[in-house]
Amino acid sequence: MKYLFGSPGKVSGLVLRMGQCLFAAASLALMASASGFTTATSFCFLIAAMGLQVLWSFGLACLDIHALRLKKDLHNHIVLSLLVIGDWVTAILSLAAACSSAGVMVVYMKDTDICSRSQATLSCNTFQISVALAFVAWFLLAVSSYVMFWLLATI
Amino acid sequence: MKYLFGSPGKVSGLVLRMGQCLFAAASLALMASASGFTTATSFCFLIAAMGLQVLWSFGLACLDIHALRLKKDLHNHIVLSLLVIGDWVTAILSLAAACSSAGVMVVYMKDTDICSRSQATLSCNTFQISVALAFVAWFLLAVSSYVMFWLLATI
Repeated sequence: MKYLFGSPGKVSGLVLRMGQCLFAAASLALMASASGFTTATSFCFLIAAMGLQVLWSFGLACLDIHALRLKKDLHNHIVLSLLVIGDWVTAILSLAAACSSAGVMVVYMKDTDICSRSQATLSCNTFQISVALAFVAWFLLAVSSYVMFWLLATI
Repeated sequence: MKYLFGSPGKVSGLVLRMGQCLFAAASLALMASASGFTTATSFCFLIAAMGLQVLWSFGLACLDIHALRLKKDLHNHIVLSLLVIGDWVTAILSLAAACSSAGVMVVYMKDTDICSRSQATLSCNTFQISVALAFVAWFLLAVSSYVMFWLLATI
């Protein structure tokens, strides 16, 4: 049985899940508090994807705490298969949401002058920070996803 | 030694690489021939990402043909590690380009009336077909990426 950085039921796994949860929650909160986020469907998709990631990562952080307290071993085929599927679906949705929002930001700020024309109604700087945080949240989730897939393949 | 669907140096692997190459080339050709694609940076990024995918998949299709003709075995650590890194980098770039272009398309068609206002200068329908083909190309590359990663983990 291999234990890699970020394995489920280990301290490194718990730290990774908490990081994912915090960055996704920060991205969600910033986007939801920015004025004018409803002008682009991609920003609403980002909120939904980050909401899903917060729920998923928070649930797995709780599972890690439970496993650490009771010294349970989570390295079995069923648990790892569920974690691999959930991690990959959430990671692909998070990357899709972050990229589509980034594409819209480039249209708003560079390709057109929507941001400079509507400075009062659109919080473009807040959108940018939220998208950057979403990319960090996705990166941490991608690390977990690869670790889970590797563990499932080598179990 | 395991042989999965899409393994390098096998007929299924060659078919998968040719599919990736064809869909990426079709997406690239449609986007590059559509009028007004330079209005959005994401569309130019899609062309670059699909160009990279065409080169990568075409190169690997040639490698598969070479291995099939000479009956060479490509299942070793060095080849698989290179394929995993290349496949994942290309797949993440393709997904990012497809998603950002899709985000821009939604802004053009739904969130604003840019498409209906500029019907003469923007080929919005061609953009849409190109983005859809890019998603198919990414999906086929993602299948290859998972197969390579699984083979590398279980070698």
